[in-house]
Amino acid sequence: MTNKQQILAHRPVGMPTAETWTLTETEVPELKDGEVLIENHYVSLDPAMRGWMNDARSYIPPVQIGEVMRAGTIGKVVKVNNHPKFKEGDVLTGWGGVQEYSVTDGENYYTVDTNLAPMPTYIGTLGMPGMTAYFGILEVGKIKEGDVVVVSGAAGAVGSVVGQIAKIKGCTVIGIAGGPEKCAYLTDDLGFDGAIDYKNDDVAAGLKKHCPKGMDVYFDNVGGEILDACLARLKLHARIVICGAISQYNNKENVQGPKNYLSLLVNRATMQGMVVMDYAPKYREAAMQMGMWMMEGKLKSREDIYEGIENFHETFTRLFSGEKNGKLVLKIK
Amino acid sequence: MTNKQQILAHRPVGMPTAETWTLTETEVPELKDGEVLIENHYVSLDPAMRGWMNDARSYIPPVQIGEVMRAGTIGKVVKVNNHPKFKEGDVLTGWGGVQEYSVTDGENYYTVDTNLAPMPTYIGTLGMPGMTAYFGILEVGKIKEGDVVVVSGAAGAVGSVVGQIAKIKGCTVIGIAGGPEKCAYLTDDLGFDGAIDYKNDDVAAGLKKHCPKGMDVYFDNVGGEILDACLARLKLHARIVICGAISQYNNKENVQGPKNYLSLLVNRATMQGMVVMDYAPKYREAAMQMGMWMMEGKLKSREDIYEGIENFHETFTRLFSGEKNGKLVLKIK
Repeated sequence: MTNKQQILAHRPVGMPTAETWTLTETEVPELKDGEVLIENHYVSLDPAMRGWMNDARSYIPPVQIGEVMRAGTIGKVVKVNNHPKFKEGDVLTGWGGVQEYSVTDGENYYTVDTNLAPMPTYIGTLGMPGMTAYFGILEVGKIKEGDVVVVSGAAGAVGSVVGQIAKIKGCTVIGIAGGPEKCAYLTDDLGFDGAIDYKNDDVAAGLKKHCPKGMDVYFDNVGGEILDACLARLKLHARIVICGAISQYNNKENVQGPKNYLSLLVNRATMQGMVVMDYAPKYREAAMQMGMWMMEGKLKSREDIYEGIENFHETFTRLFSGEKNGKLVLKIK
Repeated sequence: MTNKQQILAHRPVGMPTAETWTLTETEVPELKDGEVLIENHYVSLDPAMRGWMNDARSYIPPVQIGEVMRAGTIGKVVKVNNHPKFKEGDVLTGWGGVQEYSVTDGENYYTVDTNLAPMPTYIGTLGMPGMTAYFGILEVGKIKEGDVVVVSGAAGAVGSVVGQIAKIKGCTVIGIAGGPEKCAYLTDDLGFDGAIDYKNDDVAAGLKKHCPKGMDVYFDNVGGEILDACLARLKLHARIVICGAISQYNNKENVQGPKNYLSLLVNRATMQGMVVMDYAPKYREAAMQMGMWMMEGKLKSREDIYEGIENFHETFTRLFSGEKNGKLVLKIK
């Protein structure tokens, strides 16, 4: 039984290329006692993966050259060697990596019920991106009813959930996204109060129009100019959640620092970073709450699914070009 | 009776020049009912004053062209017209401005006891700079015993108090200051655990040496490269207090944003701005605590006093050149 894997071949400088990974095929190893074999059906493609490829101190060790590319996955248990918790046919999410099969002792894997939601949703709204949104906007952003909330990357896997949760909690929500279609999706389908198309419109002017009195919370997925535009429109005691900086991840030179950061001083505001893994003990609680909201029709999930492990690189680049609609997923089995 | 005043004549671009202010002489007006006349003895010179000169939205309105330059002062009541609280001979601190005499209804003025500390100390360690240090390091920095605390502008009015309070609270304290004399003052006189001379030494290397495991709290008075160097050495859940950015206040171009700000994400760290005026209701409590520490010899105060209202501009520039030792004060009467 063979296993196709995307192996990190080179550390990219700037945007990853076709040469960054090598598609290889190896034998699936025998299971040791207490291990299971998972057939990975879907791979989650997330901007954070770009950071894991750099040889730098971060919140988790970098992927090493020669290793399978790290990624969140969902798949089915196809073989079990005396595992205390998992049995054949179980559907598990975890860090399976960009490969057809994963062998694991099951640590950091969770079973999910595919009668309640389809597999891709479990690596999207009910997976890491959803958890990031949930804990980021509630525990770091500390939103309360009546807050004006701005979110960038708003049509993406994290941003779309951030905005919907803020709406559920009674906030006014403005999304920043690329292109008229995504913006229409935010206001027409997800119920955002306003949307700013950063590819065609002036973000500062849009913020002035949609948040004439400024914002209480800014949830940042992008960094760069948009972070600066938001810093310039903070209300007193505003909170900025630093979740990511997709505009900066492929910079060959230095990251662009927010030149308006002194707005934090003027407005006694807070900028706080977050990493979703810190909230692992509460994932289940969040998944139940979000599942409930989905059943009530208050929380919508959209996945953009591409196929074929051999198309990993091409699909991955859509994260940075924005050519995707919702959560980016690669179906590999 | 005449009153010499330093009037804002032009909004400076970059560093203020001799033409930025005009020294004028006017008549002291008659007191209205409920007003007092204060003879200002000492003027507090603070980096924040540079910000008040820009025509920009901030935490207080800018000083207008033609107005007396805003400044903290300490002086004596020399005339009273039926004031409910203050009498002749009272020593008051408040926002008297750079002028010999102030007429006021007494709002935002406080009496002080010059038997306990000399006048300049009441606009230094027991005044705004001391309050800034006290609330900044305790309420924003949230220091606790054992924390590694780094402070920039460490030999200055705010920084020297920040470091001493952190020592009192059982922290390891590293100061960043300009020149070997200031650094020796920090370690030899104030009991800091280490000092880094940013004018002669590599700050990043100094931080690596003095905080091999990183820092829990960074109290930032300077911004720029030093902020970036500190961001690169945060511990998990670190707090950065944004108190000021003296390296950036005279920038003609854009402020330099902290390019290492994504360290906030990696380390789940917080960067929070503060303005001392928010803590006004608790000034008295802080002054009592700091007065106590001074009497116990745990908190030392140092003022660098220059003379003559006509020397205001020359003295003011010392804030930015660093040619001063401790709290910068101008004696005008």
